[in-house]
Amino acid sequence: MSNFKIDDLVIENHSKIIYLILDGIGGLSMEGNEGTELQLARTPHLDALAEESICGLLDPIMPGVTPGSGPSHFALFGYDPLENNIGRGILEASGIDFPLTSIDIVARINYATINKDGIIIDRRAGRISSEENQRICAKLEQHIDLGSDIEVLVKPVKEHRAVLVIRSKSLEAGDIEDTDPQREGLAPLAPKALNAKSEKTVEYVKKIIDQSFKVLSEEPKANALLLRGFARHRIYPSLKERFKLRSLAIATYPMYKGIARLLGMKVLDGLSTLEDEIKALQDNYDNYDFFYLHVKQTDSRGEDGDFAAKVKVIEEIDKIVPQITQLNPDVMVVTGDHSTPARLKSHSWHPLPVLINSRFSRIDNVRNYDEISCAQGGLGRIATINLMSLSLAHALRLAKYGA
Amino acid sequence: MSNFKIDDLVIENHSKIIYLILDGIGGLSMEGNEGTELQLARTPHLDALAEESICGLLDPIMPGVTPGSGPSHFALFGYDPLENNIGRGILEASGIDFPLTSIDIVARINYATINKDGIIIDRRAGRISSEENQRICAKLEQHIDLGSDIEVLVKPVKEHRAVLVIRSKSLEAGDIEDTDPQREGLAPLAPKALNAKSEKTVEYVKKIIDQSFKVLSEEPKANALLLRGFARHRIYPSLKERFKLRSLAIATYPMYKGIARLLGMKVLDGLSTLEDEIKALQDNYDNYDFFYLHVKQTDSRGEDGDFAAKVKVIEEIDKIVPQITQLNPDVMVVTGDHSTPARLKSHSWHPLPVLINSRFSRIDNVRNYDEISCAQGGLGRIATINLMSLSLAHALRLAKYGA
Repeated sequence: MSNFKIDDLVIENHSKIIYLILDGIGGLSMEGNEGTELQLARTPHLDALAEESICGLLDPIMPGVTPGSGPSHFALFGYDPLENNIGRGILEASGIDFPLTSIDIVARINYATINKDGIIIDRRAGRISSEENQRICAKLEQHIDLGSDIEVLVKPVKEHRAVLVIRSKSLEAGDIEDTDPQREGLAPLAPKALNAKSEKTVEYVKKIIDQSFKVLSEEPKANALLLRGFARHRIYPSLKERFKLRSLAIATYPMYKGIARLLGMKVLDGLSTLEDEIKALQDNYDNYDFFYLHVKQTDSRGEDGDFAAKVKVIEEIDKIVPQITQLNPDVMVVTGDHSTPARLKSHSWHPLPVLINSRFSRIDNVRNYDEISCAQGGLGRIATINLMSLSLAHALRLAKYGA
Repeated sequence: MSNFKIDDLVIENHSKIIYLILDGIGGLSMEGNEGTELQLARTPHLDALAEESICGLLDPIMPGVTPGSGPSHFALFGYDPLENNIGRGILEASGIDFPLTSIDIVARINYATINKDGIIIDRRAGRISSEENQRICAKLEQHIDLGSDIEVLVKPVKEHRAVLVIRSKSLEAGDIEDTDPQREGLAPLAPKALNAKSEKTVEYVKKIIDQSFKVLSEEPKANALLLRGFARHRIYPSLKERFKLRSLAIATYPMYKGIARLLGMKVLDGLSTLEDEIKALQDNYDNYDFFYLHVKQTDSRGEDGDFAAKVKVIEEIDKIVPQITQLNPDVMVVTGDHSTPARLKSHSWHPLPVLINSRFSRIDNVRNYDEISCAQGGLGRIATINLMSLSLAHALRLAKYGA
């Protein structure tokens, strides 16, 4: 086995790379529509950009595999999505900027309502307010006690969602099955270790669950915990360490900011609209080399199953493209993390259209930025993990390999 | 990990395979030119061949990675370029047909001129003549003395370039940093071991450098050594052993002949023009199964940054294509080792157009041999290392895998 890493070829220069990541951008045609959301949207600016770019298709993980947002983003940034499949708990913790340490075992909490027989009657506890959430988390953190060796932290995210952190030097691993049965009408599942090293941890998780029932017994809605995405935290090498990139994340949603933070990117807070994001890009353009600009709305409309609304969002995004291109970056990439066709109302396995615009792109014949046109592009169909090497190459940031 | 190797499927027959390797053939459009060098060159014969072939794109190493000639040629011949990244010193030594042994540690020497303060004032020692080079190598070889345990050989290549061979059973490894600072105005760097096993070797390299200063102190130009591409030699399994191919290399440049020699190919000497190469192919056609026909000029014109000259060279090559095809090989492949766009004046990461012509090629719709047309080809975009298996397959030289 070779130990080759593109990291070893990285050189520094003054070039700038912009990733415009349209979440869930890939689509499908839907009854009554002859074409995908991207094909039917009027996107003169993206099309003009495609015409001056090299285009292709990206598979986030591999053909046929539908990715979660965690692994698909890891791939976009050049981190192997199979070796770095981080837990939902860690994503949530990073999203709220909670300072994880390398010994933490983390899970996502959904507060739920159970009846007196212990059966789940509401998996989201009536979507309690974030203030309620905060109060309940504080109460749990105060009352759960596993002894002086182990710290248990419970941090609110939003509505019924929170993060559980178990911090102890004595625990080796956190590979544990979800306790969320994913359906109402059932009792929460008992936590189960997925390997021998996690068995001790499971004992503590059981104690946490037992104590939580007592602490929450008087709560009208949030009287149970459902735990998902257990994992032990690990520290990732940053984009700066790996690729010598001073990188900035411009995103509005906590999870994407969280992923960026895990990879050592500077993350801006307080952004909520596409206009905020563009302004942030312009204001910070001189101070970074790599810009991760994340647009969430395409995914949301896909998840809603609203084809027309997704088309409309795409057209709105197209209008702001010139504000990005006029910065004249050395490399501009437009793609998504995964497909979210309105037809499926969920993430899907379909590959993503991608364009790479730079002075050194080998221009192909693609004239429209959509899934079908890009399939004819000069990049062919490649795995998303190659996108970072390609971006660095087009920015002349990779040295030659071998004599 | 699977231990599958295509080697295990190889069968022998009387088929013939020709690789026409156009060095640095891949290009880019350049200001004022609407298309790449290959797109703009008039290539009726290559285009006709493409029309009767299956076409595609090859990545020598992986998308985004610019290869040196060593690894890119290893990939062409079916050797993993990441596991077989050979040093420049070994390439040079093979190029001059120096008989390396498995204990040799090898580096490339550039003779340089330093001033009295030890600062490099000419990294190429005024490009001394090959005769001067020969004299200086002999002088070093005669006077450098590290004791009876270790043999130090210094062999001339051309102009200011030579090869250093350290031969000793007591040395384990030769992973050592270059001493060439790659710039004038600096002193040569001290050699540094890249791992513990190479530390003893470094001590000897230091002694060689110290002694060389004394030996060369009276030289007006070549009064210092710059050392690059250290590596311990290893013996590679030959094309004959791996693929049962009696193979012939037809190349004019030492380095390509050297690579072929490392892989056990028969190498012809004394060729200097394209006409020589074609005649050598014709004259030796009956006696080999596999022909590696290397054309250097495309790369040279790309390195010069001379778009028009590269176009012209391509057109000249196109004219001789019928002399190859009329031999009627079972498989004919046309591709390159890497791209060298005139626009970049250097190797680049862009993939290579490839055509595979044989009775058993599944013909696609590609009608022009160029980067953009081949991107639409039936082969798609694949890694170069697959080319040997595909060539053997089209020559019916690979048995079925599995029952």
